[in-house]
Amino acid sequence: MLKLYYAPGTCALATHIALEEADASYEAMRLDFATQGQRTAEYLAVNPKGRVPALVTDQGILTETPALLVFVAQSFPAAELAPLSNPFQLAQLQEFNSYLCATVHVAHAHGRRGTRWVDDAGAVEAMKRKVPATMTECYELIERKMLKGPWVMGERYTICDPYLFTISTWLEGDGVDTGKLPRVVEHRQRMLTRPAVKKAVAEEGTQLP
Amino acid sequence: MLKLYYAPGTCALATHIALEEADASYEAMRLDFATQGQRTAEYLAVNPKGRVPALVTDQGILTETPALLVFVAQSFPAAELAPLSNPFQLAQLQEFNSYLCATVHVAHAHGRRGTRWVDDAGAVEAMKRKVPATMTECYELIERKMLKGPWVMGERYTICDPYLFTISTWLEGDGVDTGKLPRVVEHRQRMLTRPAVKKAVAEEGTQLP
Repeated sequence: MLKLYYAPGTCALATHIALEEADASYEAMRLDFATQGQRTAEYLAVNPKGRVPALVTDQGILTETPALLVFVAQSFPAAELAPLSNPFQLAQLQEFNSYLCATVHVAHAHGRRGTRWVDDAGAVEAMKRKVPATMTECYELIERKMLKGPWVMGERYTICDPYLFTISTWLEGDGVDTGKLPRVVEHRQRMLTRPAVKKAVAEEGTQLP
Repeated sequence: MLKLYYAPGTCALATHIALEEADASYEAMRLDFATQGQRTAEYLAVNPKGRVPALVTDQGILTETPALLVFVAQSFPAAELAPLSNPFQLAQLQEFNSYLCATVHVAHAHGRRGTRWVDDAGAVEAMKRKVPATMTECYELIERKMLKGPWVMGERYTICDPYLFTISTWLEGDGVDTGKLPRVVEHRQRMLTRPAVKKAVAEEGTQLP
């Protein structure tokens, strides 16, 4: 059986929701970041990067959200979470998820984990100050150009939706004025009507804005 | 016909090599970052993010290296650049490429594009100072745990190889001691024996260490 390692408030929620949408059999394994649960020898043996999510499968351990989301879609094709046999459409999904992973999540991380990239305390504070602007810029692009509606890719719900939802729950905490992002906010609310989202959010105790 | 927008010295080289490996018909469109070629109205109409790579296809425009690499592999299956029908193996490839995209490339970018994340000149300098350490940490993980050899995924050459090669050409410029990364250096040299790599490198005028 699959085992998903997650911590509340992290991007692992996206994979957690996808597993629920796919009706997968899995066990959710909670780590506590407050007590550095991701840095124990036991967990570093699972994921040497010391991060979540990590998915233990019968064939080995997988990490990185964009990889896990396609893995879930491909392992549970009946759920139709991605247009797997259409190279262009699949690339559009992956393009969106890559943007979330490498640009949006990274912009957010500068408010929490600045010491990844600097040793200087003043520079850490300088990073925190810019997070509202960088996250706003990312989300204005999502609002205007990327989110087709009602779901990210249009009429079909896909693996992009739980990932966008997860990062969208961080917006108010990052100082973003969500009043200027009506379509993103509507997407977030629409997600919360789905049973799979409700279940994963309840299990993690996700703090919703 | 496909059109690949690239600029020399960027991660677009990975997709450029993959297109060569796939024996694809494509046109390589060069942008000059020194004159802000990625910020012209003409290019922003292609890619509103103002970055490379961007791939113009008959169906529309695609961006983001991990998405483009799977797109090339799936569009030209005869080249066998990815285990597309094996969910676990494909996820392993994507896991590696996600790490390059969201962690390694991001670590590198702190040396060149710090103003993405801070407005303060001192903080930009603080970021530059840490690049050798963060890039070394990333590459030690690649050297010890990720690069199976002779290719990234083992015996089979895949879309991970051009991506690793591309970022590995930046190591000396990022102040990394490559003497401690013999397997990575060997991979870089092995790549340079491939006709597809030679051709893309020559066309871009890639500066090799």
